Amino acid sequence: MKIYHYPDANILERLCRRPQIGRETLLVTVRGIMEEVRQEGDAALIRLTERYDRAVIDTVLYPEAEIAAAAAFVPEMLKKDIRRAADNIRRFHAAQEGGETNIETEPGVRCWREARPIEKVGLYIPGGSAPLFSSVLMLAIPAFLAGCEEIVLCSPPRRDGTLDPLILWTAAECGVRRICRIGGAQAVAAMAYGTGSVPAVFKIFGPGNQYLTAAKQLASMEGVAIDMPAGPSEVLIIADQSADPAFLAADLLSQAEHGPDSQVLLLSNDKDLSEKVLEQVRIQSAGLPRADIVKESLGYAAIVILKDIEACMDFSNRYAPEHLILQTREAKKLSRSVRNAGSVFIGPYTPESAGDYASGTNHTLPTSGFARSYGGVCLDSFRKWITFQNITESGLAGIGPSVERMAEAEGLQAHKNAVTLRLKHSARKK
Amino acid sequence: MKIYHYPDANILERLCRRPQIGRETLLVTVRGIMEEVRQEGDAALIRLTERYDRAVIDTVLYPEAEIAAAAAFVPEMLKKDIRRAADNIRRFHAAQEGGETNIETEPGVRCWREARPIEKVGLYIPGGSAPLFSSVLMLAIPAFLAGCEEIVLCSPPRRDGTLDPLILWTAAECGVRRICRIGGAQAVAAMAYGTGSVPAVFKIFGPGNQYLTAAKQLASMEGVAIDMPAGPSEVLIIADQSADPAFLAADLLSQAEHGPDSQVLLLSNDKDLSEKVLEQVRIQSAGLPRADIVKESLGYAAIVILKDIEACMDFSNRYAPEHLILQTREAKKLSRSVRNAGSVFIGPYTPESAGDYASGTNHTLPTSGFARSYGGVCLDSFRKWITFQNITESGLAGIGPSVERMAEAEGLQAHKNAVTLRLKHSARKK
Repeated sequence: MKIYHYPDANILERLCRRPQIGRETLLVTVRGIMEEVRQEGDAALIRLTERYDRAVIDTVLYPEAEIAAAAAFVPEMLKKDIRRAADNIRRFHAAQEGGETNIETEPGVRCWREARPIEKVGLYIPGGSAPLFSSVLMLAIPAFLAGCEEIVLCSPPRRDGTLDPLILWTAAECGVRRICRIGGAQAVAAMAYGTGSVPAVFKIFGPGNQYLTAAKQLASMEGVAIDMPAGPSEVLIIADQSADPAFLAADLLSQAEHGPDSQVLLLSNDKDLSEKVLEQVRIQSAGLPRADIVKESLGYAAIVILKDIEACMDFSNRYAPEHLILQTREAKKLSRSVRNAGSVFIGPYTPESAGDYASGTNHTLPTSGFARSYGGVCLDSFRKWITFQNITESGLAGIGPSVERMAEAEGLQAHKNAVTLRLKHSARKK
Repeated sequence: MKIYHYPDANILERLCRRPQIGRETLLVTVRGIMEEVRQEGDAALIRLTERYDRAVIDTVLYPEAEIAAAAAFVPEMLKKDIRRAADNIRRFHAAQEGGETNIETEPGVRCWREARPIEKVGLYIPGGSAPLFSSVLMLAIPAFLAGCEEIVLCSPPRRDGTLDPLILWTAAECGVRRICRIGGAQAVAAMAYGTGSVPAVFKIFGPGNQYLTAAKQLASMEGVAIDMPAGPSEVLIIADQSADPAFLAADLLSQAEHGPDSQVLLLSNDKDLSEKVLEQVRIQSAGLPRADIVKESLGYAAIVILKDIEACMDFSNRYAPEHLILQTREAKKLSRSVRNAGSVFIGPYTPESAGDYASGTNHTLPTSGFARSYGGVCLDSFRKWITFQNITESGLAGIGPSVERMAEAEGLQAHKNAVTLRLKHSARKK
């Protein structure tokens, strides 16, 4: 880890930057993959899965009997844990109901809005070294709560063409029936265009590597909505003298193990903290199974000492971290100054892991500074608000003349006429 | 207008399609413009404004004195109308406050969310034949309500380098101070990258032509959020025998005058309606100043007769119109079946014009079928929700073991350790 004591503005500016990816060549590759799927459907999916996942699959859609069989491979205790997490996630997202906003803006002019589910959604669960069943919870639970009718889940198969039983069981437990064993840009293309096995959806969710993100962005240019662009995972910790260096090190390491490109920052006003934390990082990283990943990502990680906690929060708001951990004496109070962050963890007994799995908040969060403009996945990510209005005859008599004059001033005579005609019609009746 | 009586599924499918734009060449042009702005800033803006808007401007930023002077050119009655519309829009959007969702998901595990403004936003107001001051209201009012700190407005200048006084006065009335006389892809680039005069923003709002939309989409691939992709404006009307053909014709025409590519559809279960509406369209379109535009867009417009109102609503939900007008006997009841639409106008005295200008709902709405996944601009378009959590020591003792087992099952040992370490620390204290 790099240590910066009271760095100048240039260094702070540099620390705010995220790794850039050579995107142009990436886009060409991804566009090619997507075009194959558009033209050839399932046949392309099976071919691309062999090419990129080195797995031979005969069907894209996972057979129902095999999904049901997965239950036998999940320990009962873990099932209880997952159900407990699911309950908390369901509770927190269900509490986001409401917001209908029904008001009379003027006498006889009633305006309101109603939420409607996005009818067809696609959930992407990355593959790789670990079966990320927690992401299934984070996407499927709000999708069902919102009332989405068609929910399709895609995840890349292992070499033997199967998905991990933990993914299968969790998906089935959440109610997902349509599980497809495909990954990467080809999965995004399948959900964007539709194939024989995969229905076309209106919005695609879920994290992934740079290929997946590029595919989602290309899909979004062609009319399919996406949750948000995803980059490498990030944590920023603000700590003062009251923080336990062992806790801080544990939180830094848990972020660092995500991937070699994980972004890990610790900010403090306590110049003696860095040595203590480094010492703890050394001790705790010893036995980690993902030590290589941790080592690589910690190579880019930094401990930054600034003059006070306010300066730390200023930097954090500029950086806009995906995860923000506050381990300061008055963490709750400090949290009010947060302007840009995905999810905030307050106090010594609130590790990020709790929110990653089980506390109830969503772990699908904006990275790469997108927390400046995006929130994480929530109930509203799976629905949209439609506005409605109903104006009475006398209501239009009130507001109509203003509409007529405004339409005329914009040079839109037919807009004016639509009101004029009605007002005249009312007058004639009297 | 084309008339379809009981068309088959193929024709309905075709009617659902929106015009496609030759995008590849468009993207190359737009990328070139944006790159000029990125590299040369204000100098490129001034050059591009001369090239595309044929206007010579010496400053990008509109001088404050000239903004103030605009008030003299706006009739007092129109000022009152605009203020009335602003009040209604403010009322409807302010009613969208709330949604904090503060709950304890388990004992000692508190999760909540708080909205924060997007700090810097850019509002784009198209130029062209009419001064669209109503769009200023629709974007600036929720931006201020949300608490955005930096609000920059861009609009292309007229040939003489000025903006219409109606745009200037409305913007100033809403509180916008930073007004830039630039348009098109160069305006989007300026707001995305920042120049000497234009601050870089985190989210860009506002409608525009295909160049503007392409620029917004390119910006969104580079890390700037956008409200939504914008296509040609649309209306779909569902009417039965109870509807007044004159009202229907007026509403069709008010959509048709937007632009030659406006999408205009009337659906009905009453086969005698089409002739009556066509007759009214002929009568009413006679005196319209934008008759050429109307004629061209009505060339693509259609009246579609289906077997019943349910079939009309089914089509509408597949089409997902920007504006949906319901002029049926039980329009309010019918509105409950709306699944996909931007904004819905219920009953004979609720013309779309009312919502376009003054009733209170927003007129920045999803087009091109995006209403399947997007809602229109609302208060939340200018803020994001941040989740927070605080777990007590005993709360972690409760939920911690579940988190440990889930993290271990995903192969993320450091995630587990972040909990284990804390639980051990608690145990030692006792």
